[in-house]
Amino acid sequence: MASTPEENLKRFTFERILNQGTLFPLLSIETTYNHLDTRSKSINLLGHISRSAAVLIAEKTCFDAKDLSPLLSSLQISLLDKNDIYHWFLVSSLPSNDASIFAFTTGAKVTLIYPATPQHIAKYSQQSLRMIVETPSIYEKHIKPYIAAKRGEGRLNWVYNILTHAAETDRIIVEDPDPAEGFILLPDLKWDRKTMSAMYTMAIVHRRDVASLRDLTKQDAAWLRRVQQKIVEGIYEKYPGEVEEDQIKCYVHYQPSYYHFHIHAVHVAHDGGEGQAVGRALLLGNVISQLEVMEEGKGFKDLELTYFLGEESELWQGVFGKTKSRAMRP
Amino acid sequence: MASTPEENLKRFTFERILNQGTLFPLLSIETTYNHLDTRSKSINLLGHISRSAAVLIAEKTCFDAKDLSPLLSSLQISLLDKNDIYHWFLVSSLPSNDASIFAFTTGAKVTLIYPATPQHIAKYSQQSLRMIVETPSIYEKHIKPYIAAKRGEGRLNWVYNILTHAAETDRIIVEDPDPAEGFILLPDLKWDRKTMSAMYTMAIVHRRDVASLRDLTKQDAAWLRRVQQKIVEGIYEKYPGEVEEDQIKCYVHYQPSYYHFHIHAVHVAHDGGEGQAVGRALLLGNVISQLEVMEEGKGFKDLELTYFLGEESELWQGVFGKTKSRAMRP
Repeated sequence: MASTPEENLKRFTFERILNQGTLFPLLSIETTYNHLDTRSKSINLLGHISRSAAVLIAEKTCFDAKDLSPLLSSLQISLLDKNDIYHWFLVSSLPSNDASIFAFTTGAKVTLIYPATPQHIAKYSQQSLRMIVETPSIYEKHIKPYIAAKRGEGRLNWVYNILTHAAETDRIIVEDPDPAEGFILLPDLKWDRKTMSAMYTMAIVHRRDVASLRDLTKQDAAWLRRVQQKIVEGIYEKYPGEVEEDQIKCYVHYQPSYYHFHIHAVHVAHDGGEGQAVGRALLLGNVISQLEVMEEGKGFKDLELTYFLGEESELWQGVFGKTKSRAMRP
Repeated sequence: MASTPEENLKRFTFERILNQGTLFPLLSIETTYNHLDTRSKSINLLGHISRSAAVLIAEKTCFDAKDLSPLLSSLQISLLDKNDIYHWFLVSSLPSNDASIFAFTTGAKVTLIYPATPQHIAKYSQQSLRMIVETPSIYEKHIKPYIAAKRGEGRLNWVYNILTHAAETDRIIVEDPDPAEGFILLPDLKWDRKTMSAMYTMAIVHRRDVASLRDLTKQDAAWLRRVQQKIVEGIYEKYPGEVEEDQIKCYVHYQPSYYHFHIHAVHVAHDGGEGQAVGRALLLGNVISQLEVMEEGKGFKDLELTYFLGEESELWQGVFGKTKSRAMRP
């Protein structure tokens, strides 16, 4: 008589792990960025049932309680780390005589931001996304002035502090000091600077005339190719034996989070979620080859760009959401 | 005297949920695709401690046991669904008198593939990725013949069956029967066809002369723009009130998983992980605008394309890995 599926599952004999979510970043401040490792709550196992191979994939379920606060008093809480208003805890079930339950369920990492500002609350709130099409004329009329405002009134001082060695000098990984060609590569705050498969760095160029992708023209292609080469070689030389050149992925954001041209360089194994998704990120290699085949004098300012925006973003609120409302009027 | 962080955490008073991973796809077969919802194991809460606002972010931890099989016998197992060799279970802690522990830890979704083939084992195994640069000449010399082989010997029969209404007719969401202009849009197997924020569809074009992105030329731009418009309008009309046109994201893969041109159309809220990452996916809107600014007669065959490949893939094993080994020889 055939076994039931439940009986089969109980007869699963473990052989080896096929794949597992990394434990990183349990101790990092990555949680402050709402940027999760997609693979971190699952495990794929190879085993057998009778004489047949079997693959078992286990994936943690969602929280099924809405208000967790009454539970906190009955659970074990240990502080992992603390930085200003950010506190990181590991919260787990009370020690049980039945060790198997504990091992299977483990617990949760809890981040407490206290006191929290309205900006924190907005950042961690659900946000609906919209696809938008930014034509060259919308860029000229609405986005360029917005970018200019975002570059004014000292808002980029933190960038200039890095570029002039007034701040974060000890964090520099790779540097090319040439004012026209060069850049400074720093670890992103998301990275613990140890786990190479989670490597996340950012190269800020010395040139101050490129606010975003939109300012790149055909004549910048050769410069960008050199910058990409220097980033990749620089990281490879800085971490010998830990990462190879073809394990480094370079991309840019449009819209970026600040308007001084910068390049994200990450380990290709890094599953970056929204930050690496099409509609937000563009692969630097493809940006360069796209520039190379453009006609003389052309650049990204001449292209229609499609991307997604949060409904809470200034650009949706101030530009695209308004256009949409107008277009929908009779 | 100031409270300790642990004391503060225990004093957290719940106000409302800011954001929560969706429960989808607990009952879907999405797990067979190793494609996880990044947001499904965390919850962001707003509350207060004394009179200050506080944000609490809880995130399930990874499995800390390698061999789960000894645990299975002591846990509650319920079969959720079954299809051929695929079995889906919900595994949870034994009912405890302490309901809070149960609510906090919940359990895991377990997929059992039994019997499993070597292809299943490879699919669920960890794979190292490499960034590669495919020049126009590598494309002509190595990739084009590879694609031709992948299109031969009936390998696309399942696609032609869909296009000729010989199969999956009842699953069609949108159809434009024109042989030169048209396409058939179907739900992807990843989608449960109910949860709109997880909408995942695929449009297969009727044209048989486009194997991949590489075959698109400037003169295809207008056709693609019409196809995109029809996909977006078609989905909007099929699901009135459930999804808006600017909530639909269209993209293509390079390399694709099969070599008959097709477009992925998903809900913009769908966090697609690797399948939507730069280096694998290209946003259709940007592909179109890139074609539009190309010179007459040019196309994606004339571009250098950068993307990532798994080391187990045929193209890494057969082409790029070999080139790399040769380049590294003295």
